[in-house]
Amino acid sequence: MTLKNVNHIAIAAPDLKKAAAFYKALPGVTVSEPTPQPEHGVTTVFVSFGNVKIELLEPLGDNSPIAKFLEKNPDGGMHHICFETDDLAADTATVSSAGVRILGGGAPKIGAHGKPVVFLHPKDCIGTLLELEQE
Amino acid sequence: MTLKNVNHIAIAAPDLKKAAAFYKALPGVTVSEPTPQPEHGVTTVFVSFGNVKIELLEPLGDNSPIAKFLEKNPDGGMHHICFETDDLAADTATVSSAGVRILGGGAPKIGAHGKPVVFLHPKDCIGTLLELEQE
Repeated sequence: MTLKNVNHIAIAAPDLKKAAAFYKALPGVTVSEPTPQPEHGVTTVFVSFGNVKIELLEPLGDNSPIAKFLEKNPDGGMHHICFETDDLAADTATVSSAGVRILGGGAPKIGAHGKPVVFLHPKDCIGTLLELEQE
Repeated sequence: MTLKNVNHIAIAAPDLKKAAAFYKALPGVTVSEPTPQPEHGVTTVFVSFGNVKIELLEPLGDNSPIAKFLEKNPDGGMHHICFETDDLAADTATVSSAGVRILGGGAPKIGAHGKPVVFLHPKDCIGTLLELEQE
């Protein structure tokens, strides 16, 4: 069991079109088209750098999981970091036994990339929301 | 002129020892020893994943540039993202002409890695503090 790469850095944006345009204006980065993900309550745009992606998130529908964050951070801001793991179940057990709370009861859900993920409680992770994704 | 890799994701921590211990407990990551950087007002620890680093920052001395952030975020949290560029002067001019304010007057300073850097105003970057570093 090993954490490997950072899969993405997620940034919540109040206006996805504006956020995508900001990154499109940066020289050398590739910006995807928006993808609505109704089952996750967000629309996503991926910004690709050489080694890692930024995931831009805009709320979609009622009860979006990022609505509260944007109320507190109306300009947008860094929302979470996603780490890839070769063994999600083992790594979830390791961090859990170290006292880190797993959000949503602990069982993995299917994330925005169609792979199992868990989220770790920010209060237990230096104020940072962390996602573990099965690679 | 091209932005290339994400060099690091910076996380401000109220207690660097505790933050380093948290990342040391994660399977598969490498954690450096703390390095005081008095000229930058921080002590740094680098956490290496396969493709990118997390830079943990603790305030050092009076007037640390992260003191205010930690007042607002006492548990710590994501502080900035650093992009590498092959031409800092050209990329700074590009983002500046797109209306993004450069912090500290616009001239590069020598960053924590001994290379020239500029910081971009978070209000102009989807609420995210961005650093550009000459590679």
